[in-house]
Amino acid sequence: MRPLLLASAAVLAFAAASSASAEEGMWTYDNFPIARANQTLGTNIDQAFLDRVRLSSVKFGGCSAGVVSGQGLVMTNNHCVATCVANLSTPQQQYGETGFTPKTREEERKCPGATAEILTDISDVTERMHKAGEGLEGQAFTQAREAEAGRIETEACGNEPKIRCQVVSLYRGGQFKLYKFRKYSDVRLAWAPEDRAATFGGDLDNFSFPRFAIDAAFIRLYEDGKPVETPVHFAWNADKPTEGEAVFITGNPGATQRLLTMDQLATIRDVVLPLDQLIASELRGRLIRYSEEGEDQAFIAMDPIVGVENTYKRGLGRMRALTDAQFIQAKAAAEVDFMQRYAAANGNGPDPWGALEAVQPIARELYAPTALLEGGTGLGTTSVAGGSQLFQWAKAIVRGAQERAKPSDQRLAEFADSRLPGVESGLFAERPTYPELEQIRLEWWLSKTREWLTVDSPYVRTLLGKESPEALSARVVSGTKLADPAVRRALWTGGLATVQASDDPMIQYVLSIDADARAVRTEWENKVKAPTDRASEQLAAARFAAYGDAVYPDATGTLRLTYGKVEGSDVPGQRFGAFTTFAGLWDRATGAEPFKVAPKLMAAKDRIDPNAVMDMAVSTDTIGGSSGSPAVNARGEIIGANFDSTVLTQRNAYGYDRNTNRSVIVTTQAVTVALRDVYGMDHLLTELGVSR
Amino acid sequence: MRPLLLASAAVLAFAAASSASAEEGMWTYDNFPIARANQTLGTNIDQAFLDRVRLSSVKFGGCSAGVVSGQGLVMTNNHCVATCVANLSTPQQQYGETGFTPKTREEERKCPGATAEILTDISDVTERMHKAGEGLEGQAFTQAREAEAGRIETEACGNEPKIRCQVVSLYRGGQFKLYKFRKYSDVRLAWAPEDRAATFGGDLDNFSFPRFAIDAAFIRLYEDGKPVETPVHFAWNADKPTEGEAVFITGNPGATQRLLTMDQLATIRDVVLPLDQLIASELRGRLIRYSEEGEDQAFIAMDPIVGVENTYKRGLGRMRALTDAQFIQAKAAAEVDFMQRYAAANGNGPDPWGALEAVQPIARELYAPTALLEGGTGLGTTSVAGGSQLFQWAKAIVRGAQERAKPSDQRLAEFADSRLPGVESGLFAERPTYPELEQIRLEWWLSKTREWLTVDSPYVRTLLGKESPEALSARVVSGTKLADPAVRRALWTGGLATVQASDDPMIQYVLSIDADARAVRTEWENKVKAPTDRASEQLAAARFAAYGDAVYPDATGTLRLTYGKVEGSDVPGQRFGAFTTFAGLWDRATGAEPFKVAPKLMAAKDRIDPNAVMDMAVSTDTIGGSSGSPAVNARGEIIGANFDSTVLTQRNAYGYDRNTNRSVIVTTQAVTVALRDVYGMDHLLTELGVSR
Repeated sequence: MRPLLLASAAVLAFAAASSASAEEGMWTYDNFPIARANQTLGTNIDQAFLDRVRLSSVKFGGCSAGVVSGQGLVMTNNHCVATCVANLSTPQQQYGETGFTPKTREEERKCPGATAEILTDISDVTERMHKAGEGLEGQAFTQAREAEAGRIETEACGNEPKIRCQVVSLYRGGQFKLYKFRKYSDVRLAWAPEDRAATFGGDLDNFSFPRFAIDAAFIRLYEDGKPVETPVHFAWNADKPTEGEAVFITGNPGATQRLLTMDQLATIRDVVLPLDQLIASELRGRLIRYSEEGEDQAFIAMDPIVGVENTYKRGLGRMRALTDAQFIQAKAAAEVDFMQRYAAANGNGPDPWGALEAVQPIARELYAPTALLEGGTGLGTTSVAGGSQLFQWAKAIVRGAQERAKPSDQRLAEFADSRLPGVESGLFAERPTYPELEQIRLEWWLSKTREWLTVDSPYVRTLLGKESPEALSARVVSGTKLADPAVRRALWTGGLATVQASDDPMIQYVLSIDADARAVRTEWENKVKAPTDRASEQLAAARFAAYGDAVYPDATGTLRLTYGKVEGSDVPGQRFGAFTTFAGLWDRATGAEPFKVAPKLMAAKDRIDPNAVMDMAVSTDTIGGSSGSPAVNARGEIIGANFDSTVLTQRNAYGYDRNTNRSVIVTTQAVTVALRDVYGMDHLLTELGVSR
Repeated sequence: MRPLLLASAAVLAFAAASSASAEEGMWTYDNFPIARANQTLGTNIDQAFLDRVRLSSVKFGGCSAGVVSGQGLVMTNNHCVATCVANLSTPQQQYGETGFTPKTREEERKCPGATAEILTDISDVTERMHKAGEGLEGQAFTQAREAEAGRIETEACGNEPKIRCQVVSLYRGGQFKLYKFRKYSDVRLAWAPEDRAATFGGDLDNFSFPRFAIDAAFIRLYEDGKPVETPVHFAWNADKPTEGEAVFITGNPGATQRLLTMDQLATIRDVVLPLDQLIASELRGRLIRYSEEGEDQAFIAMDPIVGVENTYKRGLGRMRALTDAQFIQAKAAAEVDFMQRYAAANGNGPDPWGALEAVQPIARELYAPTALLEGGTGLGTTSVAGGSQLFQWAKAIVRGAQERAKPSDQRLAEFADSRLPGVESGLFAERPTYPELEQIRLEWWLSKTREWLTVDSPYVRTLLGKESPEALSARVVSGTKLADPAVRRALWTGGLATVQASDDPMIQYVLSIDADARAVRTEWENKVKAPTDRASEQLAAARFAAYGDAVYPDATGTLRLTYGKVEGSDVPGQRFGAFTTFAGLWDRATGAEPFKVAPKLMAAKDRIDPNAVMDMAVSTDTIGGSSGSPAVNARGEIIGANFDSTVLTQRNAYGYDRNTNRSVIVTTQAVTVALRDVYGMDHLLTELGVSR
């Protein structure tokens, strides 16, 4: 007889191990396997290479970037400056349509609310952090550790506005490091191509290769009104890349879940991804229809649609990974290997797998209310209030006022003294908001929350009272004054009494639902986060014991270095060579969106070498957050920027699979062509040292 | 060490068996377990009861219904007449808003395209059907059997317009029966309440209990312009129902998948449900936003939104069932029991489980193209062209013309002579279409097909050429004349030459993509349907051998009888008593949609006994298609109509779980109250024999 389906998916192979295989790993800079990388790639990098690359690596919002000149010029993806471009645009002057092409530095324009950071120091604070949580359980455990992290950050950075300190949890609590960043709060847009040149193929080609997209842009770091001097930077390499050559990617991959147990992954497969994906699909539908209502609506909805489609497709790739029997078998086999090593070493010691299994029914039950009402589960992509900007500002104002009334180490972690500058810079940024869009987001969120938690949930009764999602969202959006940054600033500086006395309906609404939101957070932290953190810490220790430091930590949005090769792919459903060229672009164009070539790019067709490489595929290990990450050759020269990966690569969240893993890079050759032959950005070419 | 997640989900318990447990089963009338039902319920029903109930049972489109007077009066759900109500309404006269309340029979209005049927005879044709497929493989096997079914139907029914014959496959090919129906082609609407009275609580309360909805309506069967005489009918029981009393439900449950193997269920969980649910969510979002664009749009979108939300939530309940470890364990245990009995009896015989396992990778690959381009997979809810009515008509015209040029037994099954009257009645029905709605459906379908099959799929190239989904859908919808029934009739009667010569863009479009649609169908039938049918037939024989006729067939949209009790529920997430009352309705009303009481119902509040029962929960086994099914007591009196079930009951598709299974019934008491106290339908009360 055959084994059963569900049993067969876990057929136990004992070959796989939990240690990293060749080219796998999003390594921290202080534990990068130099020798193994050199051996695998045939390169000869050293510690000096690592230091140079690290100091040329920039964190830019949720993206990554690289310094490419001595005058603070930084390359990232065009999609990483999309919000900036949208903020600088008006319905009359849409830089997304035309590109943003200042011919002098004076015309470079500040991106509202944007900051950029460079990681300068790493030090170990594991002992202090572990000690802070000793003997504690539930929310007390979580809060004590968060308070300690806040103290460490404040001690190290004080109130210095140009430095940011962050305690980073690695190996799911196995290690804690203090990261110190040089921070730049004046970031200006220096060049962006036409949107269509960067997004050719749109959502349809997204998470695919071949791509034909120049998804690159330049920002510049300023301080005191002047470009920042950046003596350490990447040299610009405008040459055609070579198949098989080594590629290092330096960036800030957002979050992987490779160290989760199979039980934890099942919660993601059965609960987290279905909720996130199903409601995101509905928002997508609402936004698409809205965008068809007129030209202004199309402009307003463009950026949000791109965002939701991107998140959705990432989730789709993950759903596929978690329902791919072969992939899951390999994960399960690795877990069995780890369990056996652990059992051999620990006998009747604690059972972290059992502890995590026991948490799952609770996590499954609490995920929806926590994700929808408070956020911060660390598991999914659903966000409170549907991502309404006005709501987020109101929540920051309300919570900020409540929390700042307490000593720093008793506050919610995100309002510790060391974090306040970040909160303020987001809150005071001059960003346009669009009432119709805000209303669509809120209405959708209210109606989905009601649907998933049910009408009879006490939370839903607080959320809606006797109002409908439609009426409530319309009322608070039309009545609020928070679109005005001066109003936000006044409320923030006014403090709790001012906030409570405000008659702004969005502020009043956030105040009215805040107790419930705090309650779900407390429950999540007590029943899910704290026991998960504790068991994960045990697993981390066990993993070090079993595999030594040949393991790397899950991605946490902090700086990592990965390595691989320029290479095509030849697995079912994903067959392609390593490169695309401009000739391929002209060939793929149909004239209908999203396969319409951007007008300025089209006009330059005759000037462009058809064999110049646009994009390339590499085997290097990446995940969301790596967008804009510099792709660097073995000499430390920048050869491109990571901007995409294939849909099969989304399994990367749970495990690196060298066969399918392909990141997609826009080449410096393509960017050089765009600057020179399309957008006439001669002053930037000179700055990059490109001879024309 | 603990077992792994995926292994633990299949922990093998050997207690469960594949035979039906008490109250389980959607039984055919020729194999109903009279003795067991009587024993379980303490009743005393007999064959005469079965005959009477069967002849009072009506199939009405995708719904069920019951004859309640001697003059052809039939009760069903209001949501089963929603299309009829919409078709009879105009933006100026919206019967959904006002209710449809003719005060005489002369004012009863014909439902366009509606037919109703009563099952009169059942005979066995298993041997003939099995013989037809002997020695054949792939599409030849499928076609030979379909041709034989067509021959059997034509032999038995000829061209008699008042009779319909249908060969029904039971036990997934284990048995074939010839069902003969008396058919009524003039069905008129006799009463419908205000929509809000029937849908109170809307999508939020749908698939829940307690419900407070009078989801009932009356139609009447006509022939030769006169009401049909129906001497056999249910007696009307207007009394309050009793907790614990026996309830039989007679109706046409659409489709269950209880006999599928665990491998087949995994395909549904991993491939079918995600595709169906994710794209339905997006359509839902598009329709919701469209409905907010104005009053006409709200009217046009109402019915489609209800439809998509209903389908979506049904799928959600199924996703939950297939990811519920306990439920799946029980299914897996039953499969193991069956496998062991089979192995004991068959030694080295054929391995139907292995054959079905081998089909799954192909089914997983072909589901998306087949569901999106041709339909008829029998697995999911995704429909071709997004359910566009104009497209469906065009496809019926094109395919009908092509197929009618061949002998009946060489045609696609749905165009065999015996099926043509059904095709024609759908095609010639006078139904309004709304161009904007049609365009939304087509655009969504084209864009989702492109997304799921990818831009580079040859199918997608045929489907779109160089057009965008937006432009193509706008072009064919604005240009087509198929909204006019005379145009459809002329094309149908004109035959293939007329169709090919037509310059109607919808016809031309369907012609242009038809070869691809036929190709995916052929591939599906060869590689999935035929081997699945063959293995399923082996499993059916094995099941009879192992469990005798204590097994019932999967639901197939044909008449079944089920039994259970009036009963509340007390499982986590689903706790409620057996009844709701009008007092509960007044209490639940908030004044905001969807918790706003219908105006006429509200106006009657003082006349209504607050303790009258509105709805009740019963343990009886149902599934979609049972909507409108008569709920009958042990004396054969009608006491209600099935209209809903709880979301946990959706697991019913895969297995009956007495603890969670609760169908929701609108009571005849509530209908009596509505007719008497709200809508003044005195002539109907007289006809039902209710004293006032």
